[in-house]
Amino acid sequence: MINIKENEKLNVLNHSCAHLLAHAVKRLYPEALFWVGPVIEDGFYYDIDLGDNVIKEEDLERIEREMKRISKDNKRITRIELSKTDALEMFKDDPYKLDLIENMEESTNITAYKQDDFIDLCRGPHMETTRDMRHFKLLKVSGAYFKGDSKNKMLQRIYGICFEEEQDLNDYLNFLEEAKKRDHRRLGKDLDLFCFSDLVGPGLPLFTPKGTIIKDELQKEIEKICRKYGFQKVSTPHLANIKLYEISGHAAKFSEELFHVTSEKGHEMVMKPVQCPHQTQIYASKIRSYRDLPIRYMESEKQYRAEMPGAVSGLSRVYAITCEDGHSFCRVDQVKQEVINMCNIVKDFYSNLGLWGNHWVSLSVRDYDAPEKYIGDPKDWDICEKMLEEVSNELGLNAKRCEGEAALYGPKLDFMFKDAMGREIQIPTVQLDFATPKRFDLTYINSDGEKEHPVMVHRAILGSYERFFVLLLEHFAGAFPLWLAPVQVNIIPVNNEYHLEYANEIKDLLMNNEIRVELDDRGEKLGYKMRESQTNKIPYTLILGDKERDNNNVSYRKYGSEETVTVTKDEFVSIIIDQINNRK
Amino acid sequence: MINIKENEKLNVLNHSCAHLLAHAVKRLYPEALFWVGPVIEDGFYYDIDLGDNVIKEEDLERIEREMKRISKDNKRITRIELSKTDALEMFKDDPYKLDLIENMEESTNITAYKQDDFIDLCRGPHMETTRDMRHFKLLKVSGAYFKGDSKNKMLQRIYGICFEEEQDLNDYLNFLEEAKKRDHRRLGKDLDLFCFSDLVGPGLPLFTPKGTIIKDELQKEIEKICRKYGFQKVSTPHLANIKLYEISGHAAKFSEELFHVTSEKGHEMVMKPVQCPHQTQIYASKIRSYRDLPIRYMESEKQYRAEMPGAVSGLSRVYAITCEDGHSFCRVDQVKQEVINMCNIVKDFYSNLGLWGNHWVSLSVRDYDAPEKYIGDPKDWDICEKMLEEVSNELGLNAKRCEGEAALYGPKLDFMFKDAMGREIQIPTVQLDFATPKRFDLTYINSDGEKEHPVMVHRAILGSYERFFVLLLEHFAGAFPLWLAPVQVNIIPVNNEYHLEYANEIKDLLMNNEIRVELDDRGEKLGYKMRESQTNKIPYTLILGDKERDNNNVSYRKYGSEETVTVTKDEFVSIIIDQINNRK
Repeated sequence: MINIKENEKLNVLNHSCAHLLAHAVKRLYPEALFWVGPVIEDGFYYDIDLGDNVIKEEDLERIEREMKRISKDNKRITRIELSKTDALEMFKDDPYKLDLIENMEESTNITAYKQDDFIDLCRGPHMETTRDMRHFKLLKVSGAYFKGDSKNKMLQRIYGICFEEEQDLNDYLNFLEEAKKRDHRRLGKDLDLFCFSDLVGPGLPLFTPKGTIIKDELQKEIEKICRKYGFQKVSTPHLANIKLYEISGHAAKFSEELFHVTSEKGHEMVMKPVQCPHQTQIYASKIRSYRDLPIRYMESEKQYRAEMPGAVSGLSRVYAITCEDGHSFCRVDQVKQEVINMCNIVKDFYSNLGLWGNHWVSLSVRDYDAPEKYIGDPKDWDICEKMLEEVSNELGLNAKRCEGEAALYGPKLDFMFKDAMGREIQIPTVQLDFATPKRFDLTYINSDGEKEHPVMVHRAILGSYERFFVLLLEHFAGAFPLWLAPVQVNIIPVNNEYHLEYANEIKDLLMNNEIRVELDDRGEKLGYKMRESQTNKIPYTLILGDKERDNNNVSYRKYGSEETVTVTKDEFVSIIIDQINNRK
Repeated sequence: MINIKENEKLNVLNHSCAHLLAHAVKRLYPEALFWVGPVIEDGFYYDIDLGDNVIKEEDLERIEREMKRISKDNKRITRIELSKTDALEMFKDDPYKLDLIENMEESTNITAYKQDDFIDLCRGPHMETTRDMRHFKLLKVSGAYFKGDSKNKMLQRIYGICFEEEQDLNDYLNFLEEAKKRDHRRLGKDLDLFCFSDLVGPGLPLFTPKGTIIKDELQKEIEKICRKYGFQKVSTPHLANIKLYEISGHAAKFSEELFHVTSEKGHEMVMKPVQCPHQTQIYASKIRSYRDLPIRYMESEKQYRAEMPGAVSGLSRVYAITCEDGHSFCRVDQVKQEVINMCNIVKDFYSNLGLWGNHWVSLSVRDYDAPEKYIGDPKDWDICEKMLEEVSNELGLNAKRCEGEAALYGPKLDFMFKDAMGREIQIPTVQLDFATPKRFDLTYINSDGEKEHPVMVHRAILGSYERFFVLLLEHFAGAFPLWLAPVQVNIIPVNNEYHLEYANEIKDLLMNNEIRVELDDRGEKLGYKMRESQTNKIPYTLILGDKERDNNNVSYRKYGSEETVTVTKDEFVSIIIDQINNRK
């Protein structure tokens, strides 16, 4: 996905298009006043005060037509330099522009841009004529408070995007169409994966049986991979005394996001906003020897953050975040191998999802000009950064050095993937942390019999299950790979009267092989059932009639294919098991 | 375990022994004043005001000696009838007895019991002479607020128990000794299964890797069994709007146990005290047809209850309760089969733990004299009670009818088991519920196309994992059956120099077969390592030396056995896998 704001040419084009929009709106709504019209990643918008007028989605087409008209007129766009006094005079009837001008410093060079009879305060630069903006589209309209403050007046914000070539615009509109189809809220409902309840409340998703299967399969997968690398699962509660987070530093960092817990009996606690501090306490529960390290914990549990009530939406942003988190407590001489292991875990996990390869890695180091932003000894930092670079080279990760992207307590490796829509997703991370063990006074007895602090290496693989769910749903457009599919095989008997017995036999056979199977024995027509099986994106649909029953065969159709294949029932079981085991 | 309070003879004996205790205390501490001395399940106690004197554990022996002396004296115990005026006169110097007398109704027959120079207000009856109490033991002393109110003075409560025969007393003291050895707090620490942290807080257990394995194995076991009977796992968050519980009725029932959740951003929620309401909301998220039923959900998630801060202890009583809960939403004509299924789940699960057979079942029906205590139509109740009785007969459960033991919303079957110490444990339950679906207006479309309420059948199998942990730990005294053991096999090479390579080979072989294995390669002596393996109650200890290595064999010792058995490595794998799969 191209970032309009960061592309110099498209930035100017879209900014000019915002003026074109304002020009058209001014013609259609002469009373309109304009606040600001910036370029954003996905195009541009303009905040407009239309008095009592309300622009609806259906009005956008009319505005677009007017924009096309001005574009065709091929008006020259000219730049005007103004003194502050001139500017105040020129916009004296426009309180929004006056607000802007009055807040400018005396030394600012004030400029305005003019096209035909429309003039707007603007820093520029702009395209040369209105004809340069031909391939645009208005995308939506919404309300936006003046200066983002809910106490102020609500303005109307119109969003749009502009490209140089028609093809680019069409590609983008197709992308939007596709994204809409893949929207996780829509797919989640259609495929019955999760739901919300007014009585439970927003931001608190309920996973249905099908959604829970996917969550559990992901969890089993990650635990299986991590166990190979010595991770041990732990289980901790969702509450703690706030002291725990005062020590870890999260009480300050998440102060507004903390959920506070009280009772009539005088309890005072908070819900955990992160997993690590609880895990430090398991480490701290015993005396540890240098021989015991590394000690590696992992956990998939919910953590809770008080997001803005208006900001929670679908699974993308929730209060209840099921977080897969893991930590290694190790000696300095073990750190490198731990980092290598964690990178390999990322590789194993994302390979099984077909995402490995389509990625890049950031070696996120500190901002050398601002050492005050970090905690810990610069010497430790140097060692760690060098170590991560070595790991990157040894593993052929080809990490790009990104200064200033480190965490507060240490440098890290961040992995960026691209989904099927070309969107970049940053989830896995491996982070070095010398600070937390010191804050909690975690120790081990070294080979000299002395106490020493371990290093903590943090790793996230899939991050939060909720956000990962969004990624997977939209990436696969709901057509999950076999091993993740909630229903793997759907059995349709051609005729209940003659084929139901055999269908049940096949169902039992598959279930005994731990294959997730459904049998559609409703009295509906065969064609209807087969279409529904496709709508539900079930990987394999079995059609069982006379021939299949008499020969102990099954006929199957794979999702998205029109081809029907007939094999023996045992062959079918082998095909399915092989595909599940090999994550095909 | 005998219940002293409910055994007529032992009740009188123990009550008389409480007087014997008071008599002895009075002799040793003439200023002592006595409040009440009731019989309890485990003997008796007496609450005593000793002014500034404090009785410590070591003083109990001295008191016992004095009791023995009075017992030997064989004093007659005589009953004295008193008018209220006489009683007030007799105890005029004792504010505690005056408090008791003043609160008696005019019509009460007041009696006192006298032995030698000691006289105490008491309803009786008592034994005939002090010599009847010979086989007693004082067990502990603790503080107890007068009338249980923390604003009142703290009295001293001495506990004791008395039996008719010396053998019974000795058996009981052995039982106490054994229970102490099996105490889950001690075993949990020794075997490193769970821990607590001052920073996290009490009532919030942290499960270590080993404890988490046991929890996960139990969860896998129950989910596997329940899946056979059509249960589907769901996953719900720990918070909800309080409205959810106002409708379910739990807000009233658990009002003081609710944890309230707030944030700086104005959120107001509560933590879930039970699982069922969240599950009703998944049911309610779609239109359901009579053909879709039964719909069966299960979940192992934490629920939170604000217990009294002083009452939380080990895993027995916690704030964070990991609850295994399941519900079937079904039609009336399906209820019976659902109940049968659930009883079978209980049977399957407890059989695998070796507890089935050593149990009895209560058919907990309503109190027919107090219909106001229940909700729902008496006709529905009659149907349900009859249905449960039929199920009990069909399954040969031989349920004992217990009137007044039903739940608020319906009758139930409760299963009582006995642990290795003979203690009765009531955990599994199957409950019928017509009310909740109506409260939430849950419906399905029946075959006539009309809306109808489903019936909800609740079932608990292992209840809370925390309490179940206590049961298992104490029942098995920490020596878990193989399938539950956190470490199943401990490998000890006789000599690291010569046998470590082979030991690692065996370790890999076992791990590849998903057997949980540890390798003890510390430089300690063989005997020391073998003893430690026993202390850690690891089911199988492998000793690998020259002979084993050269012949591709392993020599093993089972926990608790002195016998060493040598088999080929593949035979060993088969033995272990067979034992795990068959829950031996």
